[in-house]
Amino acid sequence: MDLNRLQRPVFLVDKAKVLRNVERMAKKARASGVVLRPHFKTHQSADLAEWIRKFGIDKITVSSVDMAEYFGRHGWTDITIAVPVNIHQIPQINSLAKSLDLHVIIDSEFSSLRLSEGIDNHLNVWIEIDTGDHRTGISTDQTEQILGVARIISQAPALHVQGILTHDGHSYEASGPDEILRIHEKSLASLWNVKQALEAAGYSHLLVSVGDTPSCTIVERFLPPIDEIRPGNFVFYDIMQKALGVCRDEDIAVGVACPVISKNLKRNELVLYGGSVHVSRESLTLPSGSPFYGQIARLQKDQVAWTAPIPNVYLTSLSQEHGKVTGPEDFIGSVRIGDTLIVLPIHSCITASLYSEYQVLNDGDLKKFRL
Amino acid sequence: MDLNRLQRPVFLVDKAKVLRNVERMAKKARASGVVLRPHFKTHQSADLAEWIRKFGIDKITVSSVDMAEYFGRHGWTDITIAVPVNIHQIPQINSLAKSLDLHVIIDSEFSSLRLSEGIDNHLNVWIEIDTGDHRTGISTDQTEQILGVARIISQAPALHVQGILTHDGHSYEASGPDEILRIHEKSLASLWNVKQALEAAGYSHLLVSVGDTPSCTIVERFLPPIDEIRPGNFVFYDIMQKALGVCRDEDIAVGVACPVISKNLKRNELVLYGGSVHVSRESLTLPSGSPFYGQIARLQKDQVAWTAPIPNVYLTSLSQEHGKVTGPEDFIGSVRIGDTLIVLPIHSCITASLYSEYQVLNDGDLKKFRL
Repeated sequence: MDLNRLQRPVFLVDKAKVLRNVERMAKKARASGVVLRPHFKTHQSADLAEWIRKFGIDKITVSSVDMAEYFGRHGWTDITIAVPVNIHQIPQINSLAKSLDLHVIIDSEFSSLRLSEGIDNHLNVWIEIDTGDHRTGISTDQTEQILGVARIISQAPALHVQGILTHDGHSYEASGPDEILRIHEKSLASLWNVKQALEAAGYSHLLVSVGDTPSCTIVERFLPPIDEIRPGNFVFYDIMQKALGVCRDEDIAVGVACPVISKNLKRNELVLYGGSVHVSRESLTLPSGSPFYGQIARLQKDQVAWTAPIPNVYLTSLSQEHGKVTGPEDFIGSVRIGDTLIVLPIHSCITASLYSEYQVLNDGDLKKFRL
Repeated sequence: MDLNRLQRPVFLVDKAKVLRNVERMAKKARASGVVLRPHFKTHQSADLAEWIRKFGIDKITVSSVDMAEYFGRHGWTDITIAVPVNIHQIPQINSLAKSLDLHVIIDSEFSSLRLSEGIDNHLNVWIEIDTGDHRTGISTDQTEQILGVARIISQAPALHVQGILTHDGHSYEASGPDEILRIHEKSLASLWNVKQALEAAGYSHLLVSVGDTPSCTIVERFLPPIDEIRPGNFVFYDIMQKALGVCRDEDIAVGVACPVISKNLKRNELVLYGGSVHVSRESLTLPSGSPFYGQIARLQKDQVAWTAPIPNVYLTSLSQEHGKVTGPEDFIGSVRIGDTLIVLPIHSCITASLYSEYQVLNDGDLKKFRL
């Protein structure tokens, strides 16, 4: 594919960057003696997953039963579905548990009871703990409820209480690396307490699973009680992670290549064929207070890499299929209609989810799961 | 499908509402003597398109060449691609122009020249005029540039200058119906001037095409110089149109049905299996200044309709596959894990684009185009 003559927006992957990102995380996990169970919701691609498998990784995380089925079909046998069980999918989970080493998460006695009634194939259950994100999970101080769930699960013959699990999604709201570390440490202290309360009640050998890309990237060494980490975004990173101080420009491994279709020199604007259906409306805020939806790079001449983000050039407006790029006069003047620009996404997981395939720079395409 | 036992989020369409919305717009267009060329980017469904065809509609608008090919395969023969031509798709456009009465839009001499060189099948070309939206289009005061484009197009044997076209997307930023009307009237005045300037230069019989759902809904009668309207969203409407004063709750014809997977009575929150990949991150702002991503309704017992939006209940937070619903204690208390809630989307076109099929309330499913 000639990336300088694009018929439509294309989701590009820089394989060398992905491999570097995965290698760095895999090394750190190994050095700390924890399992890296990467969250495949970021890429959702069985082809890309093979790159990751080469690092000795054989346990994965997904965000839906359908995605677990997809990766199960592609040779992955140890899968955690890291969203609280939807009780109407229990038959589907039961059937998957027959062929996979399947893990689910749960945060209520109500769903635990439904699970204990509906599952007769071996299923690993993690109790989700809310260590501050306040989305799902049982709050760390609700020991009664945590023990209640543990009791229901442990009494069901097919269910195994695997451990406790958290997702510190509030690390995405942090002011930077120091606060991310504080969130992580506070989370670990809470998980110690929960683990001890469960041990005191007779639940031993419980594992502890944590996982968000900001903490997992910033932390230099994973300390007890962590047994497992589940970051996802780190394979691609994005502008949001860069803004958090979590990654550098050169770690961002994906971009949406878009052709320029219109140009306005009076307003210093370009319009891309590439809108919210190609980029997503995930945003960050400029110093002016306005939102932006991506930074902009150019393809290098040999098409094997893109440049660093161009200073002061932003995707400032999105329609369904159009995106408006605003920048300094000299940059706008240098771009011609028909040129290709690369949109570096704010949140790569969501942008990636919009595609049914990816294009690897200087290589073929990657098939992926799609809802 | 039992909508009270959902395995995953489902995009629901209320057919009766769609038919009412289409009938109202079709009647008004007929009474005004203008062509209704609806924008099919909203639904992108060949099955749903058949409902619209029954109102005597045979000309349509789409937002990409791929979408034109899709509807061309489904028996639509008069199609406008209402995004400025991507010069790298000229061969594809030329090939489509062989079998369809195809229309494209253009806003630069550069792209016009490329078009005139690359097209040898009859192709209708609209000059896009910027009447205030400031996305694409030639500004109304740049008469020289407008005439320049007209000259290039008219000199190419295969190209026909069809008329001038605008999209008043800035009507979405209006404070309400009065301002929408003012925007529309100002736009018409500008289009008159442009049309007269073109007529003075010898271009006669030019058509004038306008089209945005807010103006097309609010205007009681389409006045000259309008020959054609191209609204899209009106078939579904959404919370954004309601907030603008353009539609009523009972006109909103689509919703995302999601199962509840977690519940927090302390925080008065529910968590849906339904996140940004199912709803999209299009947002509006609550009086508190916080964003929200949808309003919430419940299914009626017979599953043939949903209720009005529940007061003070909002989708207040989105992750990739989770959505958090916040509301008054009595409402949150009344919902059980496993129940179905309906998310009424902020921007229905974008939410619809995330699906490969729709479920019609009390009926079968609808196949659709997807990138």
